[in-house]
Amino acid sequence: MEFPKITLIGVGLLGGSVGLAAKRRGVAAQVVGFVRRPESVEESLEAGAVDEATQDLAEAVSGASLVVLCTPVGGMGDMAAQIKPHLAPESVVTDVGSVKARVVQDVEPILPRFVGSHPLCGSEKTGVTHASADLFVGAACAVTPTEQSDAEAVAKVNEFWGALGGTLINLTAEAHDNIVARTSHLPHVVASALVNAILGKSHAGESDFLGAGFADTTRLASGSPAMWRDIALTNAEAIQKAINDLQNELGKLKNALASKDAAALENFFEEGKTSRDQWLKGDGKK
Amino acid sequence: MEFPKITLIGVGLLGGSVGLAAKRRGVAAQVVGFVRRPESVEESLEAGAVDEATQDLAEAVSGASLVVLCTPVGGMGDMAAQIKPHLAPESVVTDVGSVKARVVQDVEPILPRFVGSHPLCGSEKTGVTHASADLFVGAACAVTPTEQSDAEAVAKVNEFWGALGGTLINLTAEAHDNIVARTSHLPHVVASALVNAILGKSHAGESDFLGAGFADTTRLASGSPAMWRDIALTNAEAIQKAINDLQNELGKLKNALASKDAAALENFFEEGKTSRDQWLKGDGKK
Repeated sequence: MEFPKITLIGVGLLGGSVGLAAKRRGVAAQVVGFVRRPESVEESLEAGAVDEATQDLAEAVSGASLVVLCTPVGGMGDMAAQIKPHLAPESVVTDVGSVKARVVQDVEPILPRFVGSHPLCGSEKTGVTHASADLFVGAACAVTPTEQSDAEAVAKVNEFWGALGGTLINLTAEAHDNIVARTSHLPHVVASALVNAILGKSHAGESDFLGAGFADTTRLASGSPAMWRDIALTNAEAIQKAINDLQNELGKLKNALASKDAAALENFFEEGKTSRDQWLKGDGKK
Repeated sequence: MEFPKITLIGVGLLGGSVGLAAKRRGVAAQVVGFVRRPESVEESLEAGAVDEATQDLAEAVSGASLVVLCTPVGGMGDMAAQIKPHLAPESVVTDVGSVKARVVQDVEPILPRFVGSHPLCGSEKTGVTHASADLFVGAACAVTPTEQSDAEAVAKVNEFWGALGGTLINLTAEAHDNIVARTSHLPHVVASALVNAILGKSHAGESDFLGAGFADTTRLASGSPAMWRDIALTNAEAIQKAINDLQNELGKLKNALASKDAAALENFFEEGKTSRDQWLKGDGKK
């Protein structure tokens, strides 16, 4: 499978990696990147992520067989409206946003050949200089078609991520958002809450006592606040439910601590260790 | 400073590392290890952690200038009673337990020259084969004297950890336990709670969506359940308070999510990022 022209709207870590992977794997005859800042033209060319970079949106998407939206989740609807007049009727459009229901809801009414997707391969690193052609190899790639989706467009989006090395998971946008609220957004908000609880306001020499355990547990808290604000806003209900699940676990633990229930405490830690070790073993991720 | 004879009660990761470091740095003329299992005699000798290993407690502590208790925190009182008849009057005794108030309360009445300590250099690894002579270099070493402590014993315990490369922090056992409840025990219990909330009972394909972020955030959950049960039991009140602090942060976040308060959400993530990045910068730990 080869796409004659792929257009990336935004060429950062994810967009740049899509470009590198598509070129390296012969998935695209031509990769064009739309960028906002003048200096990004040179940067994305230098990184080898695109064959051509432009600040002209009409030129970027004109004649594209596939357009990949790599911009913040809150602004995808606006972007869809901006590119619509310049798109060929057969163009397929997808995105890489971390939240799907809101994006699908905003974009699908404007672009009927849009199918949402989400490759799960984030990083704290940002920018095209950290892009990698192998970013999607073995990564779960969620694709979220709706009942209105064009079957051919769904097939093309699946083929695309598969060709980049991803492992495809098709599910509804709502199911996706509920799952990532638990698997991705909850660990992130907990990391931030933990830093705030330990290092916020009054503390008494705590920082001398923090080591590798704290550093790893809170690594996600060093991500972009603006990006996580947008994710939190666009998936607020599911994240609240996920926090409730965690609070139930913490409540059980507090009961066991209050009653000095040794068996319940050991069971709590044993359950966590067993589930985590089985997961690690199951898919070899580390 | 040189100790003519140092005795390690228990030769696992920590005890073994004390032995290796004391020998490498010329802090001890002789290192003797007390072990329970017959096969540990050979293992601890092979690892180079001791000059002599024995299953005979009386022989192990006889004539020791310094005894280091490297056994679980719940059993330190019993161990103190067992070694007491065989100790020379001038012997100084310390320990490496993660919780201090309970240990000091159990051991000090039995052994007046006991001074509690806690080198903060844990690892999920266990056993003398993972011991390292450099484990204490740059690590915070808490020493928790009381008003009853023998001044000479306090000075010797401080000198000892300093000679092994540690950074000394003297504070009360209660202050220590309140701080580590926040800096060490809270991240641990949160990691376990997070695994249980996400992978416990009913879940719908979550494991396909878990990646490096989840793996890092929950790394601590793979620690020993029995060890963490004991830590939780011996520091239960302080850990409950630390969990309350975290729940307050999660409560604030839920309010911001419920009211879609973009500024409060960004502030929450910004505060976490800033505090964590400053801490990382401040002490260079990673």
